[in-house]
Amino acid sequence: MLLGEYAVLHGKHALLCAIDKRMVVTLTPRSDDQVILESALGQLTTRLSKLNSVPPFQFVLTALQTLKKYLTQGCTIKIESEFSATMGFASSAAVTVATLSALLTWLNLPYSELELIRLARKVVRQVQGLGSGADVAACVLGGIVFYRAHPLCATQLPGSPLITVIYSGHKTPTVNAVQQVTEKFASHPKLFKQLCQAIHYCALDGMQAVLQQNWQALGDVMTIQQGLMDALGVNTPIMREIIYSLRQQPAILGAKISGSGLGDCVVALGKGKIENLATSTIPVQIAQRGVYCEKN
Amino acid sequence: MLLGEYAVLHGKHALLCAIDKRMVVTLTPRSDDQVILESALGQLTTRLSKLNSVPPFQFVLTALQTLKKYLTQGCTIKIESEFSATMGFASSAAVTVATLSALLTWLNLPYSELELIRLARKVVRQVQGLGSGADVAACVLGGIVFYRAHPLCATQLPGSPLITVIYSGHKTPTVNAVQQVTEKFASHPKLFKQLCQAIHYCALDGMQAVLQQNWQALGDVMTIQQGLMDALGVNTPIMREIIYSLRQQPAILGAKISGSGLGDCVVALGKGKIENLATSTIPVQIAQRGVYCEKN
Repeated sequence: MLLGEYAVLHGKHALLCAIDKRMVVTLTPRSDDQVILESALGQLTTRLSKLNSVPPFQFVLTALQTLKKYLTQGCTIKIESEFSATMGFASSAAVTVATLSALLTWLNLPYSELELIRLARKVVRQVQGLGSGADVAACVLGGIVFYRAHPLCATQLPGSPLITVIYSGHKTPTVNAVQQVTEKFASHPKLFKQLCQAIHYCALDGMQAVLQQNWQALGDVMTIQQGLMDALGVNTPIMREIIYSLRQQPAILGAKISGSGLGDCVVALGKGKIENLATSTIPVQIAQRGVYCEKN
Repeated sequence: MLLGEYAVLHGKHALLCAIDKRMVVTLTPRSDDQVILESALGQLTTRLSKLNSVPPFQFVLTALQTLKKYLTQGCTIKIESEFSATMGFASSAAVTVATLSALLTWLNLPYSELELIRLARKVVRQVQGLGSGADVAACVLGGIVFYRAHPLCATQLPGSPLITVIYSGHKTPTVNAVQQVTEKFASHPKLFKQLCQAIHYCALDGMQAVLQQNWQALGDVMTIQQGLMDALGVNTPIMREIIYSLRQQPAILGAKISGSGLGDCVVALGKGKIENLATSTIPVQIAQRGVYCEKN
């Protein structure tokens, strides 16, 4: 997420990008009604008639449930990921989009990108209770994406600036971070609304910067939004250190928390590195291509 | 300044407090038309007919100019300060308020607190080009003050919580800090407006907290506004260190930059201390009493 956290949950715009870490879902049709799921997280065998959403396959199982009326035979679904589910790289969104895309392609059901976004967002929300759908949109479209949940707006913007992603070594689930912020601001509702409104304008100004391919302006707005993340209380000492260490580097145009905060990743515009901190620099680039299917 | 920086320059509310560091202005009437000014900063001898505003006595001289039509004889004005003019303790506001108050009392001109605030604010703005007048209001009223420039609102609120003030060792003049922020946000006018609006709500929520004598709530809002100061880009590495060091202390309820930032003081709610940093902890308390005159 480049810009727009929290505000995007309240109907505001966000700006985010897809990265070149892929989730590969391979669907093999079966002649019986068995559904077999395999991933590094485990294996599950069930039947079409018994598609209960259970960990660690909630997203895949809920995707299957959603399209159940079209399913007349079982399948084996193998999930391979280039990144860990703990790193907050929207693995839930990615596996949901990939699974739905594979199923729709297998079933020869035509769909537009916006329809796939709506469907995947519904699955994610069903599983985790909330979700702006912004990460889903990035998985579907690829590149830099300008997103709003309702009325749905999801557009790929031009450009592919260099980015740096540093994992802080710890992640608070989005739902918990959002919950903590909600509690913190329960007695400051108008102030919270203003902070979201300011973050919204960060996303709008960031979008303009991208359209102008003005990466310094985009970095500046990212740095401004980081102050707002601080105001929301979702910064941590280690993330602060990462952010300030990055900002001191000449190639870095801006740096902030990516996502709901209280851990997870820092995203910076430009190429930087962190030394002497127990963190992981994750080599990533913006992936111009979103989800795609290869049918044999 | 407890809450409301920057926004107060745009017609929004601010919350601030007077501290127990006094500026003493002693006015002795003269039988001739000479005006003699004395302070630790220097000495100046002039005449009633030649009251040009020159450093280091711009504020005193402009105050004299403002009341010139009432002056029929000269005077000696001696200025003694318990604090350094470099520390951003609103020395300009204090000397202006004290001088005007001494002059009005000497001249037997009746005045209300609001009239004194208006008059002193006019002098400060004439000298330095801008000024919300919030510091002037705190000097006049004392205690915790809820302030808005226009329509003028200046009220003392009840309560006297403990505060900690740490000087960062360096100060950027307010006018320069404001200028830097203005330039930074020249291309983000709506975002700047939203940030000010959010700071405005910090001041409003802070005022409510004071009325409820809920010091934890006041501290929380101060911490929230610090994020907004970060968003405005007026934080510095040393201030960041002071703020985070203070926040780790159990007796501290909240901490932020006091004033326009890029140096100057950090203000915290509660009693804390800083070690191992080249900074000065300035022992202060909130002064319940504002300006007052003793006439011999």
